[in-house]
Amino acid sequence: MKIAVLPGDGIGTEIVAEAVRVLDVLDLKFEMESALVGGAAYEAHGHPLPESTLKLAKESDAVLFGAVGDWKYDKLDRPLRPEQAILGLRKNLGLFANFRPAICYEELVDASSLKPELIAGLDILIIRELTGDIYFGQPRGRRIATDGHFPGAEEAFDTMRYSRPEIERIGRVAFEAARKRSKRVTSVDKNNVLETSQLWKDVMLDIAKEYPDVELDHMLVDNAAMQLVKAPKKFDVVVTGNMFGDILSDEAAMLTGSIGMLPSASLNSSNQGLYEPSHGSAPDIAGKGVANPLATILSAAMMLRFSLNQPEAADRIESAVKDVLASGLRTGDIWSEGTKRVGTREMGDAVVAAI
Amino acid sequence: MKIAVLPGDGIGTEIVAEAVRVLDVLDLKFEMESALVGGAAYEAHGHPLPESTLKLAKESDAVLFGAVGDWKYDKLDRPLRPEQAILGLRKNLGLFANFRPAICYEELVDASSLKPELIAGLDILIIRELTGDIYFGQPRGRRIATDGHFPGAEEAFDTMRYSRPEIERIGRVAFEAARKRSKRVTSVDKNNVLETSQLWKDVMLDIAKEYPDVELDHMLVDNAAMQLVKAPKKFDVVVTGNMFGDILSDEAAMLTGSIGMLPSASLNSSNQGLYEPSHGSAPDIAGKGVANPLATILSAAMMLRFSLNQPEAADRIESAVKDVLASGLRTGDIWSEGTKRVGTREMGDAVVAAI
Ligand SMILES: CC(C)[C@H](C(=O)O)[C@@H](O)C(=O)O
Ligand SMILES: CC(C)[C@H](C(=O)O)[C@@H](O)C(=O)O
Repeated sequence: MKIAVLPGDGIGTEIVAEAVRVLDVLDLKFEMESALVGGAAYEAHGHPLPESTLKLAKESDAVLFGAVGDWKYDKLDRPLRPEQAILGLRKNLGLFANFRPAICYEELVDASSLKPELIAGLDILIIRELTGDIYFGQPRGRRIATDGHFPGAEEAFDTMRYSRPEIERIGRVAFEAARKRSKRVTSVDKNNVLETSQLWKDVMLDIAKEYPDVELDHMLVDNAAMQLVKAPKKFDVVVTGNMFGDILSDEAAMLTGSIGMLPSASLNSSNQGLYEPSHGSAPDIAGKGVANPLATILSAAMMLRFSLNQPEAADRIESAVKDVLASGLRTGDIWSEGTKRVGTREMGDAVVAAI
Repeated sequence: MKIAVLPGDGIGTEIVAEAVRVLDVLDLKFEMESALVGGAAYEAHGHPLPESTLKLAKESDAVLFGAVGDWKYDKLDRPLRPEQAILGLRKNLGLFANFRPAICYEELVDASSLKPELIAGLDILIIRELTGDIYFGQPRGRRIATDGHFPGAEEAFDTMRYSRPEIERIGRVAFEAARKRSKRVTSVDKNNVLETSQLWKDVMLDIAKEYPDVELDHMLVDNAAMQLVKAPKKFDVVVTGNMFGDILSDEAAMLTGSIGMLPSASLNSSNQGLYEPSHGSAPDIAGKGVANPLATILSAAMMLRFSLNQPEAADRIESAVKDVLASGLRTGDIWSEGTKRVGTREMGDAVVAAI
């Protein structure tokens, strides 16, 4: 088994280093190999996803990813910006199934913007389709409009599209996940406006017939954005397209108030996966040794479970993280009165010790 | 001056009736004419936006709109569903500028899911482009895919598109609005992925040069969905496209916890406008006399200010609503311990009396 380690930019290197130490201490049988990605790769090789990095990712069983991006790359042409690396990895590895849990840890209830009773015990799993939709839909570009409100004017356009088999496969992932949880799936779309969403809903209804033990309901994306704020605990498994999933999974993550704790997994049909924290590269605190490594450490646990077939090792990491939280250690992002503030490294040390 | 009164479905008739009583008591010089829209119009005429209703709306200076929709129409073909009426009105009247305030009334702070200190005093103005984007972009439909992940499979597609003048005019609306407020505009897009968003951002930067006194910043839509939860009071004027605006304006409205209080206005370039509450038709409580009419009454105030050139009358309505809240009257949606629960009609009575 082989893991590609891609720390990336900003706090990426610091947090991935701690996850690697945690993996090391478990003394499992796999090889790890690092490579540059994002802005770091652009600086060294002129491209955010160099051929060599992509090759390493492809030949590995899993990718442990930190974060990419920095304001200083904002002015580059889009194909050269750090985020293109993550889009390129998703596309080239066919990572269509994104798992984004939004969990509120008991000890961190107060970190949320929401009143404690609304958020305590939250445990949502958002399943976002990751290789289709308007993210990758062709055609797209700029042109002179020939119809619409201002024929003759410059316009830009993108194509939202989903095919039946693309919706079927992500639907099955959601129903399978729901079987292992509360047996409820909420499919989010905008079928009152979009053709793509109407097909999405139709296919979800078809797939539901294969899972008579799982309850399916449908929610419009605007309503979902509201209900997440109003009563997040009513959700269990949510399945949605790439664009709506981008927005809703971040909203749900932020509801917990502790996005520094939330891992994610992106899988293809052979369970090869990319694992990354739900937060970004946080260039403002990079290099200061204060970033929270727990989301990345928990992403490594997801990696062991989903791609490396080591569920016991995954359990060990997850319970070590729980123990560390219970012992009162906190990085700055989740710190509150009465707990002990620690840095990235100390937090990693504590997880290693707990294992 | 003429107002088209379109109550629509569900609670629409009840709440619009109260707004009409409030307008009546002001004894202003304008004509009001009612017509069916949405499911009600479909039942009577076989179409959610009959020619006669559209004609009335077009020849009026303003439309006072209740709400449309009911689960029983979910199975109709999309062109016959109630929501098509609102899309048809927006398109035919060219109502490109949607104003969606998200305001937290002092007395209603506790209705919010958010902790009081995060929400007290909230006053955001979301300006959503309303006649372009993927809502109306052609081409759209179903077909057999010839490329993508599954060539040969059935697929559905929609087109996101914006032209430079469409972005310019909504941008100017936002900058003008900001001039009357805190002189800050946040433009929300997804320029790291979408061509349409890149043009959106480019044009906003161009427009900003006309408004050197207004500060412009840019935020990605996923981050905006997070920041609204984390620190909503950091926003002032937000401008965004039709699709992102649909999601973010509902999220922002729900943050206040009192969506039954929030009006909206949709204007065209000659200040003809459609005014409606931000909430929906709530078929579950329709006909029970318990719906909150205040969002509709406040929409009537916006109508007087924006389309009918009666700012004093608008002020009178708005201060009457404040007085009624201060006196402790509440409909069920905003009721809390220690306040007096009243129905739709009593709330209308109270506003009329306060005027
Ligand atoms: C960096 C960006 C392209 C990416 C996305 O939009 O998918 C990010 O927001 C995410 O959710 O992983
Ligand atoms: C009813 C629907 C078509 C509409 C929209 O998506 O614009 C509604 O959600 C709104 O925001 O006014």
